[in-house]
Amino acid sequence: MDPAVTPLSSTDRTRLRRLRDQGRTDRAALVAVLRAGFVCHLGVVVDGTPMVVPTVYGFDSSFLYFHGSVASRSLAGGRTACVTVTHVDGLVLARSVFEHGVNYRSAMVYGLPRVLSGAAKLEGLRVLTEHAAPGQWDYARRPSRKELAATAIFALPLDEASVKVAEGPPTDGDGPDASLGLWAGVVPLGVVRRPPVPDPALPPGLPVPAHITALAEEA
Amino acid sequence: MDPAVTPLSSTDRTRLRRLRDQGRTDRAALVAVLRAGFVCHLGVVVDGTPMVVPTVYGFDSSFLYFHGSVASRSLAGGRTACVTVTHVDGLVLARSVFEHGVNYRSAMVYGLPRVLSGAAKLEGLRVLTEHAAPGQWDYARRPSRKELAATAIFALPLDEASVKVAEGPPTDGDGPDASLGLWAGVVPLGVVRRPPVPDPALPPGLPVPAHITALAEEA
Repeated sequence: MDPAVTPLSSTDRTRLRRLRDQGRTDRAALVAVLRAGFVCHLGVVVDGTPMVVPTVYGFDSSFLYFHGSVASRSLAGGRTACVTVTHVDGLVLARSVFEHGVNYRSAMVYGLPRVLSGAAKLEGLRVLTEHAAPGQWDYARRPSRKELAATAIFALPLDEASVKVAEGPPTDGDGPDASLGLWAGVVPLGVVRRPPVPDPALPPGLPVPAHITALAEEA
Repeated sequence: MDPAVTPLSSTDRTRLRRLRDQGRTDRAALVAVLRAGFVCHLGVVVDGTPMVVPTVYGFDSSFLYFHGSVASRSLAGGRTACVTVTHVDGLVLARSVFEHGVNYRSAMVYGLPRVLSGAAKLEGLRVLTEHAAPGQWDYARRPSRKELAATAIFALPLDEASVKVAEGPPTDGDGPDASLGLWAGVVPLGVVRRPPVPDPALPPGLPVPAHITALAEEA
C-alpha cells in the first residue's frame, strides 16, 4: 500500500471544524508534517485529567514511535493517546485584530500506543534515532541490554490522523477593511540549525563527522 | 506579590520524575519560557480521550490566555486543561545512542480554564494579541461586538505549573564511552523570524510600520 495515496481516516474527532484551517486528507500531507520535526506533544489522560508532554518521535509507513518517559505509567494500561506535531510558519498580521492568525502545519494522531519489546523495541528505537539524528545509529554506540531495558518505546498506529495547514496572506484584503490603509502581511518564522558545538570534554582536533555536518545543515 | 520570586506549586502532577531534565521552581523561569513563544499545546479530555491542539496564547502575572477554537466545547463544563509550551534548543549527540537527547525549555500549566466575557474578554484578547504581535492592538482595527462574540478566550490560572530545562553538552564525556573516540556535542536549533512579506492585495508603496519591522526582528 503506497503511503503517499492512502487517505487519512475521518472520524468524529479528526474531522475538521474551522474554516481558515485547511484540512488535508492524504497521507503524503501527514508524512510531510511528521518529516519536518522530531519533537511531538503527547497527550494522555492521567486520573481523569489531561497531561501534555513533549517527546522525541520517529515514524515509518505504519507507526509513529515515541519515547515513553514520564507518560509511560499512564499508557501501560492500553489507553488512547493523542500525538500532535506542529510547525509554526508565520505570524499573520491582518487589518483587523479578528483576522490575525498563525500560518502553521499540524498533524494529530489518535490511537492506542503499544509498548514495544525485544526486536521490535530495538527497531523502534532505531527508527526514532535515525529520524531525529540521521547517521547516529551506525556511528554511536548502540544500547546495551541494560540500557534498552531502561528505555520505553511506544508504537502508535498512523491510522487515525488529521492534518491542518494554514498558509498565505491574511484574508481581509478584499473586504471593507482594505480601505483602512493599514499594512498587512506575514512575518515568516522558521527553525534553523546552527553549526555543531563540540562537547568541551572532547579531545582537541577531533573533526565533525560528515553526517553530523549534514544534519546540522538541514532546513 | 513579585512574580519573579513566587515559587511554583509542587503537586503530584507537576513534580519532576526524570534526572537529566532539570526542574526549575521559580516563577521567573516560567515567565521566561512563556515569553519565548506564542503557540502552546492545549490538552483537554473529550469523551474520555485526550485531545492536543496548538493554539495562540498570551499571559500576564496571573493568567495564561488562549484562543478556545476547537477545544471550546470540551472546556465549557469547567474541566481541567494542561497547557504546554516547548522550545527545542538543540539536538544532543552523545557517544552512545542511550545518552542522546534534546535540549529544550518547557512549561506545563494545569488548571481550570475560565471562559471570559465582557471587559475581561476584551482584556484577555488584548494581552494575547500584544504578546503574539506587539503593537497590533493599537494599529489594527479592534474587534467589533459581533467579532468578539465569535471569539472564545479562556483564562488559565498560572498557579500550578512546572518548568523543565535541559541544556548543555551530552553527559557521557567523563564515562567509559569517552574512550570510543567518537565526536559528541550539540546541534543548536532556534526559531528565526524573516522580513515581513506584504499581502499581495496591499496598494504599492505602503511602508512596513516600525512596530512590525521590530517584531520581525525579535529573536
